[in-house]
This record gives sequence, C-alpha cells and structure tokens, in this order.
Amino acid sequence: MPRSPATDAGKLAVSGDRAAFIDRIKRVRAATVSLTDGLIPEDMTIQSMPDVSPTKWHLAHTTWFFETFVLIPHGGARPFHPHYGYLFNSYYEAAGARHPRPERGLIARPSVADVVAYRDSVDDALIAFVGTASGDAWAKTASLIELGLHHEEQHQELILMDIKHVLSQTPLNPVYRAAQPRAARETPAANYVAFDGGKCEIGHAGAGFAFDNECPRHAVWLQPFALMDRLVTCGEYLDFIADGGYRRPELWLSDGWAAVQSQNWHGPLYWRETEDGGSRVFTLHGERALDPAEPVVNVSHYEADAYARWAGARLPTEFEWEHAAVNVGAADDAARPCAVHPAAAQGSDRLCQLFGEVWQWTASAYLPYPGFKTSSGAVGEYNGKFMSNQVVLRGSAAITPPGHARATYRNFFPPHARWCFGGIRLAREV
Amino acid sequence: MPRSPATDAGKLAVSGDRAAFIDRIKRVRAATVSLTDGLIPEDMTIQSMPDVSPTKWHLAHTTWFFETFVLIPHGGARPFHPHYGYLFNSYYEAAGARHPRPERGLIARPSVADVVAYRDSVDDALIAFVGTASGDAWAKTASLIELGLHHEEQHQELILMDIKHVLSQTPLNPVYRAAQPRAARETPAANYVAFDGGKCEIGHAGAGFAFDNECPRHAVWLQPFALMDRLVTCGEYLDFIADGGYRRPELWLSDGWAAVQSQNWHGPLYWRETEDGGSRVFTLHGERALDPAEPVVNVSHYEADAYARWAGARLPTEFEWEHAAVNVGAADDAARPCAVHPAAAQGSDRLCQLFGEVWQWTASAYLPYPGFKTSSGAVGEYNGKFMSNQVVLRGSAAITPPGHARATYRNFFPPHARWCFGGIRLAREV
Amino acid sequence: MPRSPATDAGKLAVSGDRAAFIDRIKRVRAATVSLTDGLIPEDMTIQSMPDVSPTKWHLAHTTWFFETFVLIPHGGARPFHPHYGYLFNSYYEAAGARHPRPERGLIARPSVADVVAYRDSVDDALIAFVGTASGDAWAKTASLIELGLHHEEQHQELILMDIKHVLSQTPLNPVYRAAQPRAARETPAANYVAFDGGKCEIGHAGAGFAFDNECPRHAVWLQPFALMDRLVTCGEYLDFIADGGYRRPELWLSDGWAAVQSQNWHGPLYWRETEDGGSRVFTLHGERALDPAEPVVNVSHYEADAYARWAGARLPTEFEWEHAAVNVGAADDAARPCAVHPAAAQGSDRLCQLFGEVWQWTASAYLPYPGFKTSSGAVGEYNGKFMSNQVVLRGSAAITPPGHARATYRNFFPPHARWCFGGIRLAREV
Amino acid sequence: MPRSPATDAGKLAVSGDRAAFIDRIKRVRAATVSLTDGLIPEDMTIQSMPDVSPTKWHLAHTTWFFETFVLIPHGGARPFHPHYGYLFNSYYEAAGARHPRPERGLIARPSVADVVAYRDSVDDALIAFVGTASGDAWAKTASLIELGLHHEEQHQELILMDIKHVLSQTPLNPVYRAAQPRAARETPAANYVAFDGGKCEIGHAGAGFAFDNECPRHAVWLQPFALMDRLVTCGEYLDFIADGGYRRPELWLSDGWAAVQSQNWHGPLYWRETEDGGSRVFTLHGERALDPAEPVVNVSHYEADAYARWAGARLPTEFEWEHAAVNVGAADDAARPCAVHPAAAQGSDRLCQLFGEVWQWTASAYLPYPGFKTSSGAVGEYNGKFMSNQVVLRGSAAITPPGHARATYRNFFPPHARWCFGGIRLAREV
Repeated sequence: MPRSPATDAGKLAVSGDRAAFIDRIKRVRAATVSLTDGLIPEDMTIQSMPDVSPTKWHLAHTTWFFETFVLIPHGGARPFHPHYGYLFNSYYEAAGARHPRPERGLIARPSVADVVAYRDSVDDALIAFVGTASGDAWAKTASLIELGLHHEEQHQELILMDIKHVLSQTPLNPVYRAAQPRAARETPAANYVAFDGGKCEIGHAGAGFAFDNECPRHAVWLQPFALMDRLVTCGEYLDFIADGGYRRPELWLSDGWAAVQSQNWHGPLYWRETEDGGSRVFTLHGERALDPAEPVVNVSHYEADAYARWAGARLPTEFEWEHAAVNVGAADDAARPCAVHPAAAQGSDRLCQLFGEVWQWTASAYLPYPGFKTSSGAVGEYNGKFMSNQVVLRGSAAITPPGHARATYRNFFPPHARWCFGGIRLAREV
Repeated sequence: MPRSPATDAGKLAVSGDRAAFIDRIKRVRAATVSLTDGLIPEDMTIQSMPDVSPTKWHLAHTTWFFETFVLIPHGGARPFHPHYGYLFNSYYEAAGARHPRPERGLIARPSVADVVAYRDSVDDALIAFVGTASGDAWAKTASLIELGLHHEEQHQELILMDIKHVLSQTPLNPVYRAAQPRAARETPAANYVAFDGGKCEIGHAGAGFAFDNECPRHAVWLQPFALMDRLVTCGEYLDFIADGGYRRPELWLSDGWAAVQSQNWHGPLYWRETEDGGSRVFTLHGERALDPAEPVVNVSHYEADAYARWAGARLPTEFEWEHAAVNVGAADDAARPCAVHPAAAQGSDRLCQLFGEVWQWTASAYLPYPGFKTSSGAVGEYNGKFMSNQVVLRGSAAITPPGHARATYRNFFPPHARWCFGGIRLAREV
Repeated sequence: MPRSPATDAGKLAVSGDRAAFIDRIKRVRAATVSLTDGLIPEDMTIQSMPDVSPTKWHLAHTTWFFETFVLIPHGGARPFHPHYGYLFNSYYEAAGARHPRPERGLIARPSVADVVAYRDSVDDALIAFVGTASGDAWAKTASLIELGLHHEEQHQELILMDIKHVLSQTPLNPVYRAAQPRAARETPAANYVAFDGGKCEIGHAGAGFAFDNECPRHAVWLQPFALMDRLVTCGEYLDFIADGGYRRPELWLSDGWAAVQSQNWHGPLYWRETEDGGSRVFTLHGERALDPAEPVVNVSHYEADAYARWAGARLPTEFEWEHAAVNVGAADDAARPCAVHPAAAQGSDRLCQLFGEVWQWTASAYLPYPGFKTSSGAVGEYNGKFMSNQVVLRGSAAITPPGHARATYRNFFPPHARWCFGGIRLAREV
Repeated sequence: MPRSPATDAGKLAVSGDRAAFIDRIKRVRAATVSLTDGLIPEDMTIQSMPDVSPTKWHLAHTTWFFETFVLIPHGGARPFHPHYGYLFNSYYEAAGARHPRPERGLIARPSVADVVAYRDSVDDALIAFVGTASGDAWAKTASLIELGLHHEEQHQELILMDIKHVLSQTPLNPVYRAAQPRAARETPAANYVAFDGGKCEIGHAGAGFAFDNECPRHAVWLQPFALMDRLVTCGEYLDFIADGGYRRPELWLSDGWAAVQSQNWHGPLYWRETEDGGSRVFTLHGERALDPAEPVVNVSHYEADAYARWAGARLPTEFEWEHAAVNVGAADDAARPCAVHPAAAQGSDRLCQLFGEVWQWTASAYLPYPGFKTSSGAVGEYNGKFMSNQVVLRGSAAITPPGHARATYRNFFPPHARWCFGGIRLAREV
C-alpha cells in the first residue's frame, strides 16, 4: 500500500478551513475506532501471520504517526510513553530502532484500554494544535496531518484485512458484522470494452491529494486493448478449479507453481470444501455458502495470472486500467456505501466494478514512474523502497474507506499475497 | 513433566471420604483460577514461543481433561462445545485429532470469559458426579479424578512458567505479583555432604499418589559421592560468566556449545545487562536488580553442566539425588509457603533447598525404570513416549504447588529448555 | 536467461546450407567441451549452491536437449540410457519427471567420462540426422536444432559462471585460465550521452535468430534520458563502500536491505578483504589484487540500484538501453575476443562497453511485451513462466560466447543474484 | 563413535616392538586406501548429507591426525600444505578454526591425487619418526599413534557408511563390491537367553587398548533379564511394517513419531518398494531383492524401539548387553571375515551375531561412567562432549574392521541416525 504524499499534496489542507479540518480529523479517527465494535481484547492482540498486525497495534501505530511527525517536532509535545516509539514504529528506518514486525503479537501490554487512552490523548493534543498553531507551524504541518489521515484510512483497510485473517483461524467461525439480506443475482454476461491505445497520459494531475508514487504524470504508448466490463466471479473461478486449474503447471508462472505446491493451494485463501464437496467461504459476515455471482477475492497475483491464462486472456497493465478508468468516466470511489465483502455485479452497458468491490491485480510490476522523486524525511521513506518484487493492483475494495482511492491510485503487494482483497479483471489484445 | 499415574495411584482416592474429595477438587480448581488475578485477556491469549501455551488454553485444557476422561465416558455428559475437544486436547493421540501446538496463540475465540464458563459448567458436573456416582462408577473414576487434580497442579506451574515468558516480551516490564520485602542475606559457604553409595533402592514405594515413571521401585548400585548442601547462587554464576563461561567451548557439551552460538546465549534466560554493565533480571515480581544470594534459575541443562565443569564438579545423577533426599530426611515439599521466585539459602548444617526453590538438573537422561509399564488408555500415553532426548530434574520449584512434588518425583525437560525453573546443585566423587 | 525461440527463428536454419550447419554444430559442441580444459572430475561434480549446476550436468543436459527434442521424436532414436531423461531434464514440466535441481551435486554416476561418451554418441547421431533427414523432417527440426545451439551457448556461459563459484569455495584459489599480461589503464572520465526519447520501436525485427521474449516488436514512449558512456568501475564502487554504502538503509530497496543484513554482504560476491584492509578478488584467473579500472562485476540488482542512488543517478530501463544501443551503432557482440573476466574501458567519445564485459542491470522487471506469445510445446516452456520477480539485464559479458547476444537480447535474473556477471551502467533524467 | 583413548592406552604400544609397530601402521594405512578400489574421483568428492563426509576428506583427515598430533609437535615437521590444517580438522576446537562440516562437499581442490600424495608424504615421515625417535619422544607419542590407528579404523567404517549413502543417491545403482554367492538360509527360531543380574562389573579392565568412555570399570546392579539369541531379521521387520508399524503412533517414542511424519519414513533407510509391491534394498553390493533371513540394518534407534514395543519386548540396556557378551564368551570380533553387508544367522544354541553383522541399538543414553575423566589436550576432546542426546550401540558391524571392537566398546549415534549400520536385538524381563 502506498504511503508517501506527492510533493504538493498538502496545499489543499493548508488553504482549507481549520474548523472543517478538525471535523475531518475527528471523523477519520473515530471511524478507525468504530471498526473495533464487537471485537474483544483477545481478537485485537493476535498476529496470525507475519504480514498481519494486531488491531491493537494498528490503533497505536496510526496514533504514533501524528505524535512522531507532528506533535513532538512541531507542537513541543513529550512522548506519551517512553516505549511506544519503539513499539509502534512500523518500518521507518529514519525514525529509529523498532520492534520486529513478526513479534507484534507477543506484546501483552500496553492493553487495548491503554492504547485507547493513548489515542484520546493524542487526539486532544492534535485538535488543540490545529486550532492554535501559528501560520508558520500550520504551513509546515498541514500536509503531514493530511498525509496522516490518508495513512489512517489505509490502516482502516488493513484492520479489516487483518482481523479477517485472525478470525478465520478459530474453528468457531465468528461473525464480525451481520450481513444484510441481499436478493440473489444472476451473473451478467461478460463483454469486452475496446480502447485504441496510442500516446496516453498516466499519473496524478494537479488537484487533490495523491501519493508520490502516482507522480509525475507522464506519457506512455499503449497498443490497442480491451478490458472485461465486470470482475471475474466465484462461479467462473469454480470452473477453473474444476478444470484442474491448481493441478496444471502449464497455466502458472514458475514462482506461482512453486507456491501452489509448497503451500498446498487448492482455491482462494478463505474457501473451504465441505465433506460433501460443496464450497463455503469465510467472510467478515462469518462462514457461508459460496455465492457464484460474487467477485472472487483473496486470490494472489499468481492465481489471477493463471486464471487469465486458462481463460485465454491476460491481466491488464496498470496503464491500460488507468486509461480505461479515466476515459469511461468511472463511477467515483466515494459514491458507494461501506461494506466488508464485495457484491455481485448488476447488468450494465459500461465498465463496472472498477471501485469498491475488489482490488484488481494488474500485469505490472510496481516500479517508479519516469522522474519519480521520493518525499524528503522519514515520511518519504515508504513508496520508493518497496519498488521491487511487488505487483500493482488498481481500483479499490469493499473494505477501502469510501473516498480513499482514485483512478491514478497504485496499490501494491507481493505476487503471493492473498490476504489483501485482490481479485481479477481480464484484458486481451484487440 | 510427568503425567500418568502409577497403576495403584487411585486407591487412596477410592477409599477416601467423598465430601473431603469434593472439597479438594474445589480447592485445586479454584487455585488455578486464582493464578489469573491481575492478568488481562491480552496476557492470557498470547503464545510467546511454541513451548508456551496461553493461560486461556491451560484453563480450558485442564477442564477438557475431566470432561473427556471422566464426565463423557462415565457420567453420560455431552460435550460442552463441539470444537473444544479439538482445541484443547494437548498431545493424546488416542483422544483424536487436535489443534497444532504452535498455533495455540492464534485462537481468538473462545474468549477468556467463555473458557471460565466452560470451567464452571464442568466443575458443577464433576462435583455432582462425585457426590452421586454409584460405587461401581466411583471405583472406575476415582483414580482418574485424582490424576486430573495432579495434572491440574502441573498446569498451575506451567501457567506461571508460561506467563513469565509472555510478560517478559514487552518492554513495559509488567509486575505479576508484588514482592514482599526481604532482608538481604549473605550466601552461606557451600559444603559437600558425603554418601557411601552401594546398593540403594530407588523409586516410589507403596503409599500415596505417584506417577507411573517413578515405578517400579528397584535397586541401583551407587559409587560413593558427595552433594553440595545448597544451590548454586546468582553470584557464583556471575563469576562463571566473568571467567568467560559462555565463550569457552571446552566447558560445554557439543550440543550445548551449538546452542550457545546459534541462540546467542550470554547468561540465564531472563538476565539483562544494563548499559553500565550491571545485571538485572526479569521475574514475576517485575524487572529488578540481580540478587547474588538467590539461586540461579532459568538455565538449561547445558548451562548447568558447563557451570559444573567450570567449578570442577559435576551434576548429580537422579539416583544420587533421590538417595540423598530420602536419607537426610528432606523437609517436606508441602511444608513451604507459596512463592513465584526462589529465595536465597539460610545457613544450615544439612542439605537444604531440595524443594521449593528451583528444580535441580541431574546428569541423568529420562529413561524407564527396569520393568516400567505405562498405564493403559489415553491417560497412560504421556510419560513413556517422552523417554528420549530429555533430562531428569529433581526437587521442586517456588512455583510448584506445595505438596505436589516428593523425593521420588521425576520432572523432565529437553536439555536446551530454559523457561522451566531449572537450577543447579553440584556433586562430586568422594 | 532466455531459452525459447521467436516463432520464425528457424527460418534461417532451414534455408541454409546443411554442410555449413553441420560445421556449426561441431564448432558449438566442441566449444562447450573445450571449456573443461584444465578441470578435473572433482571440479565438475560439485554443486556449490542450489543455483549452480555441476559442469558434468551442463555437459549432459545440453546433449539431452538434442536427444529429447530432435533425435527421439524425429530421428527414431532410442534413449542412450534409461535414467538420463530423468537426470538431465532441467525444468521442462512437459518433458516428464525430473531430478530435483538442488540435488544435482549428489549424483556420483554417470562419471564425467560416461557423459563425454553420451555427448559423442548424440553428436554422431545428430550430424548423421542433419546430413540425411528428408526435407520434411528437416523442416520440422531445423529450428529446434538452431535453438539447441543457442541453448548450448547459454550453457557455455553458465558453465563459466558456475565453475567460478565452485572454484571460489576452496581456500586453495585455483587458477582456471592464466591471465594475459595487460598494461594498467587509467579510468577515463565518465560522460553522459543524451537521447531525446519520444516514440521508439523496441524488440526484435525480422532477420536472424531471436528468443521469443524479444518479440513482438512494438512502440514505447520514452522521456528524454542520458546514459553513462562507460561502466561503473571497481574503484568507483570502492568509494561507495568507503562511504558506508553497505551500512545506510536509505540507499537500498527494502528487499535489498534485508539481503544485505541476512546474508551479511559487505561488497561484491568475490571481493575479499585482506588483513591489512586491502582488497582482493577471486576471478577465473585466480585470486588477485583488485584493479580499480576494471568494471565492477558479480553485484546483485540491489547493489546496482543502491550504487546508482548513492551516485545521484539511476539504472536505465531496458527500453532506454536498447534504444541507445541501436541508435549509436553499438559495436557488434561478435566482434570481440573471448575472455573470462571483464576489462577496463579505454577512452572513447561514444557509448562503450555495451557488450562483452558485464551484463548491465536495468530498472525493468522482466515482463512480456504486448502481444507476447510463447512457442508451443516443451521448448516454449521457458521464457514466459519466469516473468515474475526477475529483473532484465542487457548487453553481454566477457564470458558470453561471442556472437550470442544482440541489442534486443533480454537476459534476466532475480534481483538478489550475484553469481551471474551483472554490473552497472548509470542513467539519469536530462 | 568414540575417539579418545583410556589414559593407559598407550602402554601397549610403548612397550612393543617398533618394527612390528611400523608394520601395523603400514597395514592400517594401506587398508584405508584399499577401500577406494573401484571408486572414481566423482564418488569421492560428494557429501550427500551433512553427516556424510567425502571419501577424499576421510583420506585427508586421518592423515591430518598424525601430522597435527605427532609429526608437527613431536617430530619437528612443517605442515604439508598451509590450508590443510583448516580443511581437515574435524571437530577439535582446541586445534584451531576449521572448515564447516556441512561444506565438505564443496571443496574441489585438493584433488584425490593431491590427497594421496599427502598421505604418502605423511606415511613416510611417520614411519621414519617411529624408526628413529628417541626413547623420550617415543614415550610421548606411542599412545598418540596407537590412538591414531584406532581412529583410522573408525574412519574405515565411516568411509563405507558414507559411500553407501553417496552411491545410493544416483538411480544408476552402482555396485561397490560384487557379492559372493551365498546359499539361502532359513531363519532359525529365536530363543531368549536368561541372566540373573545382580551386582555386575562393567567397563574396560586393564589390558589392551580402549577408549576413555569405556572407563572406569565400575559396578552396576542389574535386574534379571533375557536377551534374544540372534538379531531381528528383515523378514520379521517386514511383518512389523505389514502390521502398520509406521502408521501407529502408540508404538513410537514421541520424537520418533515426529521423525516418521516429518521425514516420511516407511521402512529402513535403503529399502525400496517396487511397483508390484515387492521389496528391494540398496547395498554396497548394489540394489537387490530383500533377503528375509538377513538382519535388518540402517534403522534408527526410534525404529528399533518401536519394533521392540510392537514385538512385546524392549531393547537391552548397554549394561545388559555387555554383561551377557562377557559372560557367554562371545566369539571374538577379530575372528571374522571382512564384509560390506551383514549375513543371516546360522542355527546356534548360544548368543550369536554379537559382533560383525550390525551394531545393536541399546536402551541406554550415552552418558559418562561414574568417575569418568577425559584425556587432556585436543585428543581428549571427543568422547565427553558428545554425551548428550545420543544413544549407545553395542557389538560391531560387517563394515567394522575386524579386531576393532570388543565387549566393552561403546559406539553412539543420535537416535534418528539411520546411515550407521544399526540393527536390533531384543530383550525382556524374566
């Protein structure tokens, strides 16, 4: 996931109304806490694999961000606790030594209650700071706070990704959120939408917040291509499995086939076979029967790529995806309801499901755009250094906070990652 | 740790007063729960290494024992929960499939509160069963319940071993129990007590409960030997370290030296160096300055053996230890107060600190006595199958429930284990 | 390294003179054997790490290729030995079960002499086949044999990469080939050559052999860029090390920094520090003093990338490299002498050292070109399936057989690989 | 395997005839080289697993022993090669840094021919030294040379253990030595021979060479016991397998069952199932059909223990074995022919197959005898430091040099080791 802002990303915040900005801080910070409704301290302490962090850690880390990058250097604050800087730094080499990531689940104390007290204390100080900072202090920190809010939204998604993995470990199948009743949907036929290609402009242009990895805007040359107008469904993915998808090496990238064998993959991460051969799936609504019309989710890039090969298609490049999304006037990421699980497509005569269901694995390695520059200082430490062995995903997922993503947004994960909400949209030559 | 009873171990229980037995059940079961005073759910969920189990798991597993071996087969009970049999079986192959040991810390649910409800339900049923069982049912189950209580006492010790390790992981240095003020003690000079050896009888004889691995009683032939009258202290162990103890391969068993290097050992498990070269130690009383008069604890067999070699002595065999303990009329394990950390020796003219401070690593591999037979059924599955690659410890520790151990008791752990409360008593040829 | 031919790659062979073709077969096959001059069976048996194959294995595998894909299916041949098909298949899932790659060094028999007999037998049969095949059989096999020769050339390079690693393991520092005396050279100043970018055609065009991953030829859009006119030298790399290059995380990709720490990298693979702080390097000429004017070699992509960041530059993309190489009329890869170690640059007013010294790590992930299609059948199994987690290198190395590479050639290795002959050429924005 | 001499072990040598001693040196050294008949350099270079050493290494290491402990300190010799001390030290911490054991198979040079030259040079110097040493020098070195010869005999056995493992890796099934035709034998019925036990003397007494771990002689007290008069056969072991031996956890020690599962054991190390369900076995005579009358060999202690439990018996302790062997007047280890594979038992009315077929796993952990002292200096470094996590084997094997073993000899290996020639003799209570 991207972390550092484009260099002009703070302009919006600086020029805005501070009272409105305080409201926004309160809304974003409260939204994070509301994700813990129904969770107990036991849930929020566990690290179920090295990639997962305990909910408790996310609550503290997002707070540490504001304390470390805003309040201490610019607000004259003292650290809330002498050990929290060590415990809740994630990956910033420039911000000092830090607790090893795979051991986040070994930390009994601070308790969840202690962490909530930490949040409250930092929130109070941050709101006071925004309300009273001099114009100079404000000019230096507005973009950092803006960044901190986008960073917090990313952790809102991570909290949901991670708690899904945690809750999936116990055979008791807990329900995180009750599902709303939904009418069964037929899967609409898939159509390909064609694009001419040629010289296309890619990347963030000017207005609004963006991460540094979306910049600079630049030209690429695309060959003509076509994109499937909806996501690949669970029913279609069942066909792939039934056709020996996980037993045929010729369908897989070499590293993908090695993962299939060494990790004994037989289907997407949370799919479970019943004794009578049926398929169930663990979701944040609990375990339930597989709905063939829903988009497939929690597959790796390797699985997405193998599926595409089996289907006689391929994955789109990130440039194809962005060009299409921009040019068809994709529905806004902000204009959708919250959810914890993706929904089936409705019939449509245009590209749909670009946002708000599942991130879409692309064929593109995560690499810098021509002329890419990282932000200076610790907050610039993220996006550049992960530009190796990772794959770009585009769009957004049901668990992405509405309004967080955009057509130029570049999400990224290693190709074997399955706990992120990655799914599949197909492309092909014209 | 031993688990299965000697074959006649239930006689005591069968012939006793059922009302008194019910009182004892209540006392033992309540003592387990009282160990959780001051712990929060976060503490009780964590598995800080594969050997450690979460407190929550111990609370449930000891309950599962009575449910699985007594209430379901003999009391007509239905399982309290369909998944608990899988989750809370520890190692009994004969009792069905079980949750992998290294993943006990991944189980968010059942919550601590759910487990307490499980305990309460099984306690009620067990007490009702004991009060109303027919003579026949009682004859079949009394020894199993007796075993279950000794098993529960073992887990009381494990809960303390394990929570010490869990709490040691966070830099916040929590205090599990406040320490009582103690007057500083001078370390008394160490003397060796000599024994003639010859033909000696070893093992459990007749009366009272014992585990199967203490039987059968049999003769061994001992050469003359001498035993140090007190335990090795932290101050003496500091001398060993200062003399290059952890840097001199000639002092170590080959596997011990490999452990020193691969695990980067520089001192006992919970010792910590301060920046100015001082020594502190994490205990269940929190982190504090090292007391040179206290017995050294949380060392492995390898460290005990290396220390002995450095000191020009050796570790006693388990037969020497038992012979000495029986013949000097060792103070009873039951006649001591509870504690969570060992105390310094007082001057004495006889063998002291045999019980109640630290388990004493012996030179003996954990092997069956001549004519050893395991109990039949799942409860007999433990002691025999661990008779490989383990070393015997004798005595008992501060955290052992008073009255649990005895002179013939054979505790055992792998030679690299440091989280058990193992310490050092020296022996030598005469 | 690439393996499968572009779909029209056999045309050249089919239309050529068979007698000349037989000469070429003899030359290529003899060149492979000549690489073993001075090696003893002990050298040729060892697999010094999983990526390395024994020389003996390379000799047999390149032979197996002709036997399996040409002589058995098209020439009616019987396998030379019933077990060789299993032992000497490298990675072709479609060609049946195969011996595990990391265990190639466990195979005592067949002996080197047995493998040479296998080579001789297959050579005789292949030459007879080419001389006598019907027009139809020839049309089916010419491109396969052509491919087999390019494949064999790749293994000639692998034999040298691998034996360098094998011989570096013993403290006896064997000399594989005596070095010719060379006059010391001054390092010429580095200049950047600028290019305008814009719409550029990339990939193999029409005539001559190429691998499938060089196709199809297609347009890309390049921003203006500049390329350093020579390779980075050992002397410059020493400055990077002296400036803390291997101790400063901010210079490294995240995965690169993890490799530095976990594998304890302090310099390029074969560099050795002497006790007085001098630098020596193991080469196929034996161990010798580091020559500051020579190009640095045996660095990983991570090291190349960190060096470039330290130098305030970046690595070129593979498209920038190819565009530059094509447009400056790069000296032909075939027009250079054989060598086993790269040579220092001579002063020049143009891009030099593009070929024949060290492969040049690019900033490009190894991915398919738009419209890429794999060849059908087992021989098409290679290039496509490795398009994940690998990085493209361009140019060629001293150990690449002259004439093997070309401006469109795409070599590839994982970013951590150091035993391949990877070096550094810098690029920057204009 | 034991390595250090009992403290008086050199007396024999000192007092003997030097010319006869020189003859013995020549015989033992030549016997080692004769084991390489029929091996090629490829065979002698490979390390097929970390426990195995290349033949080449054994040839050099046994030579290094005489050079390092005799010729350099006592004969004024210069090292033959500056790197051999590092390369061919096995485990002697006191003899300086050494090449890592698991990397012995990565050493291409010195070649086999170089090592043979090293042997010849050291042999010449050693023989000259023995012929001309002053009485004082002789008194200091005779026991070291004597030890070196016993050490060399141990490596003769290791060469055969190791080359069997190496040759078993290739599907070509090489024949190391052609088998002599043998008449098929019926397996004689097994009988138990009873012993009274009581106070028994154990350990080496006075005359002749012994290793330090056989001392001091001391009393033990044995309960009455009985020993099977012959070894367990392959046919009997087939019955164990057919009865689900490798699928029933209740038959196994816990660590043994873990080994069965993690290493996927289905039978002894070199047993192979044919496609039609038959059993074949790889031997130093090549692969051949299993002979049910032969003793089972290449089983671990875990398998021996599980077999014994299945058979309603147990393994003998090392004291029971020695007491029986001494008291029945066991046939001398020296009075048997050389062989590379064990032979079936012939009918007998006494304990047979004690020596010369397979080492017999005991129930005894490898621990020091009461009063055990290691030899001083580097040569005393072996036996003591391995007294942890190892199990004693008694007797000797077909591949043990005749005359090497004796009734008090204590061989030892970790309980999971299968490449040593361990087999099974049963014991039981009377």
